[in-house]
Amino acid sequence: MEAFYQNKKVVITGGMGFLGSNLAHELVRLGAKVTIIDAMLPLYGGNEFNIHEIKDQVKFHNHDIRDEKEMQAHLKDQDVVFHIANQTSHVDSMTDPFLDVDINCRGNLIFLEACRIMNPEIKIVYIGSRAQYGVVTQTPVSENDPIRPTDIYGVNKHAGELYHAVYHQVYKMRTTMLRLSNTYGPRHQMKHGKYGIQNWMIRLAIDNQLITIYGNGNQLRDFSYVEDIVKAMLLTGSREESVGEVYNVGSGDPISFRGMIEKIVEIAGTGEIINTDWPEERKRIEVGDFVADISKIQKQLGWQPQVSLEDGLKRTIDFYRQHKAHYWSS
Amino acid sequence: MEAFYQNKKVVITGGMGFLGSNLAHELVRLGAKVTIIDAMLPLYGGNEFNIHEIKDQVKFHNHDIRDEKEMQAHLKDQDVVFHIANQTSHVDSMTDPFLDVDINCRGNLIFLEACRIMNPEIKIVYIGSRAQYGVVTQTPVSENDPIRPTDIYGVNKHAGELYHAVYHQVYKMRTTMLRLSNTYGPRHQMKHGKYGIQNWMIRLAIDNQLITIYGNGNQLRDFSYVEDIVKAMLLTGSREESVGEVYNVGSGDPISFRGMIEKIVEIAGTGEIINTDWPEERKRIEVGDFVADISKIQKQLGWQPQVSLEDGLKRTIDFYRQHKAHYWSS
Repeated sequence: MEAFYQNKKVVITGGMGFLGSNLAHELVRLGAKVTIIDAMLPLYGGNEFNIHEIKDQVKFHNHDIRDEKEMQAHLKDQDVVFHIANQTSHVDSMTDPFLDVDINCRGNLIFLEACRIMNPEIKIVYIGSRAQYGVVTQTPVSENDPIRPTDIYGVNKHAGELYHAVYHQVYKMRTTMLRLSNTYGPRHQMKHGKYGIQNWMIRLAIDNQLITIYGNGNQLRDFSYVEDIVKAMLLTGSREESVGEVYNVGSGDPISFRGMIEKIVEIAGTGEIINTDWPEERKRIEVGDFVADISKIQKQLGWQPQVSLEDGLKRTIDFYRQHKAHYWSS
Repeated sequence: MEAFYQNKKVVITGGMGFLGSNLAHELVRLGAKVTIIDAMLPLYGGNEFNIHEIKDQVKFHNHDIRDEKEMQAHLKDQDVVFHIANQTSHVDSMTDPFLDVDINCRGNLIFLEACRIMNPEIKIVYIGSRAQYGVVTQTPVSENDPIRPTDIYGVNKHAGELYHAVYHQVYKMRTTMLRLSNTYGPRHQMKHGKYGIQNWMIRLAIDNQLITIYGNGNQLRDFSYVEDIVKAMLLTGSREESVGEVYNVGSGDPISFRGMIEKIVEIAGTGEIINTDWPEERKRIEVGDFVADISKIQKQLGWQPQVSLEDGLKRTIDFYRQHKAHYWSS
């Protein structure tokens, strides 16, 4: 896999954000020619500091995936694209469903049409979410289990996945669809807790603040360290047998939400847990336990998560303590 | 059920088209106060002749579901809405996916937001399609079977259904979601064969033209006469236990596509069958056999299709022979 990316031309949409910038670092290390497309929308995770060490080794275009001409221009003559850019907030998808549909439905179609028209051979990795499953009735959840999203974000992320599946079936385009569990690690946005709440909890602990757990906090979660997720993305981007397939990507090692917060506080050595009832707007879209069945990607592609929660949290907390100035302000 | 609609205020989006106008006739007969909203987009089935016998007994507003203000105005103070308006062509959803996403995703959200803001108690019946299932691996297909659409139309009709499910879960709105098999009968558009191909075959037979079957024509289909579909819609609109549920609606009596065409030619006494290979653009989105498992709506609501294919075809052919002038021209 590592040799595959040497001199490959690789595009990352949303490449200034959390997943995209961590992926960009690894691709640069592997000798790929990296192009980042990112709209730098204020609410989301785009942050120039995320690529400061590699900024002379990547091309960065400040464009929106909804800009048809720019997408066509930058997807031409490329080998692989990791399509990460999206509206990311569950809560905002309910308060402004039109923005969500514009980015996550129309934007995905602009992206796919640009690939079809300019570069139908390009390998495409679509980054979906466990939010597509919604409330699950049994865990672990496999790729064939029912899709019952509880918010507009989950519906539209799933529509995005299905568009990629249709473009594979109809146009024989080389698409692979991932569904990620909760992710954490360096280079996440740390300005608010509207999404990626586990990262927000890390900020609160570092700042020695109160950390609120809604309800009993016993719901199971599947937290993946970003380095493992980056490896899963690179693997699916490089392997031909992943074409047309959907894969769960998670830790394989669930923990309760409360357990995660307790570990954060323990490793940080700061922060304090308090408990309150669920606020109505979050309770309505809360999904209960979630644990991904990751056996498909393990068996088919040999991927294996390698970073323990303790190690991942330690590295994450160290990173933000060192670079707080670049993440705490908006 | 019949008594339920007496003096009820009922809105039909897409009410000038095939399903909507047949539904409007039955609702007028049952004493409902009917409001039709229809954009009369040229490609689709809106036709003033469809309601000429009842035009003094219904209100008609020529508006698009994407017109937020008009939707809010006309959904206020209403009891039930049958939400039928949509982009309907499978082929067009591939050539212009942006129109499809605009009507079938954004338009559905404008509709649901108008209900939520102006009339959260309204009973909503969403009309989906067997296209949501796509290629099926076994028949009959039940509501819990996998959703693998083969075109953008199918993806977005499914997103529309999931939006309605989310608005039920999150806002406790009273939504019911139907997935219709192939439908035929009076008041369909007969100007082109871009969708509702079985109706287009009826026109060709009436005009004593050649009727082309692609491939061997052995794929199974589930053809429902519109009168039976209208009864299923009325039943779900009137029954509280349908809230939050998804139901297949079909004939329960499959026939091959070829068998259907042979019956059309036999009953019409005109038309001639010829065979050719599949054209590429249709083959790519062809789904093979489809037969709906309709046991859920049969058991839960006691619905039962009542019109035989022979009887339905005879009534349909008689209708168009009598009213050809109002359907053949564009």
